[in-house]
Amino acid sequence: MYNIEKIKEKLIEDIGERRYKHSLRVAQLAQDLAQIYEVDEEKAYIAGLTHDCAKYNEEKYIEKLNIDISTYNVISLKDPVLHSFIGAEVAKKVYNISDKDILDAIRYHTTGKESMTILEKIIFIADAIEPRRDFEGINNIRDASRKDLDKTMLMLLDSSIIFLISKKAIINPLSFIARNYLIEERNGKTR
Amino acid sequence: MYNIEKIKEKLIEDIGERRYKHSLRVAQLAQDLAQIYEVDEEKAYIAGLTHDCAKYNEEKYIEKLNIDISTYNVISLKDPVLHSFIGAEVAKKVYNISDKDILDAIRYHTTGKESMTILEKIIFIADAIEPRRDFEGINNIRDASRKDLDKTMLMLLDSSIIFLISKKAIINPLSFIARNYLIEERNGKTR
Repeated sequence: MYNIEKIKEKLIEDIGERRYKHSLRVAQLAQDLAQIYEVDEEKAYIAGLTHDCAKYNEEKYIEKLNIDISTYNVISLKDPVLHSFIGAEVAKKVYNISDKDILDAIRYHTTGKESMTILEKIIFIADAIEPRRDFEGINNIRDASRKDLDKTMLMLLDSSIIFLISKKAIINPLSFIARNYLIEERNGKTR
Repeated sequence: MYNIEKIKEKLIEDIGERRYKHSLRVAQLAQDLAQIYEVDEEKAYIAGLTHDCAKYNEEKYIEKLNIDISTYNVISLKDPVLHSFIGAEVAKKVYNISDKDILDAIRYHTTGKESMTILEKIIFIADAIEPRRDFEGINNIRDASRKDLDKTMLMLLDSSIIFLISKKAIINPLSFIARNYLIEERNGKTR
């Protein structure tokens, strides 16, 4: 269904070898997690592979694809969440990926959101803890990722919010919403 | 204009002596801060005095005043932000305070919000650091409160978010919005 070799060639061109190798690691880990959690492994691999497809070329693609970023709730063109939202558009229009599950997993891989699908959680998590990532507490999170996706999401969101607070940086509202949603769900709130 | 003695009598009845004494300390500190930042000292005193007027009686007042809490974005009747939102209604309808500045300062004293007035910031801050409050780092925050309200707000919001994360508790979205707004403002974003 997907011409993976063609996607890979285009990716190296677009995001460079270093980021491409990161994408391969995310794709592989996403596929492993998809197997554990019994969701479509190919979708997980493709979403992992292309999750950063807009990175470094945000401005180019905004112009080329005529993307209206005013709805993205981003602060500036340097906002790190921009590449995920634009990435979903680029994956669709440049990489010809039409699967909505994959596109949404790309779109929300940086911020998270409320009521995420298993695939969305897997891409968010695989990006954060692929084998070359290293930060305090990552081994606990890696262990959790093989047992409980929601617990892992909460650990990652909390750790990211605390990091952004320490940097006095803006925190995307979607990340707050994602975190509160997981807590409410754990506390048994019915919506 | 305000019958302060009557307000005080009603308050002791409603919230008990312990919480009443806290309210007196908040009122006094709010008045001091109002003097420093050159806003209406009487409004600050009244807002500080009545900020907790609905506390412990949330359910009673919801029924009595026929308050629709569905718009409050609260999780449950135990949500600690409930007393502030209901407090604004109680201050208006039970304590006969009609001044919108005071009512808004009561309404947002727990969560904060974006684009707060000086009076709103003062009540939020006075509640958090009145002389009997004690938590790690409070002395730095007390020092900051006499020099820079926005810096103080950010310190308090960050410290509260980190505390709630450590408790795995829900964080009210308004607090995130308040925090991000202060950061954006500091970074010079024009809205």
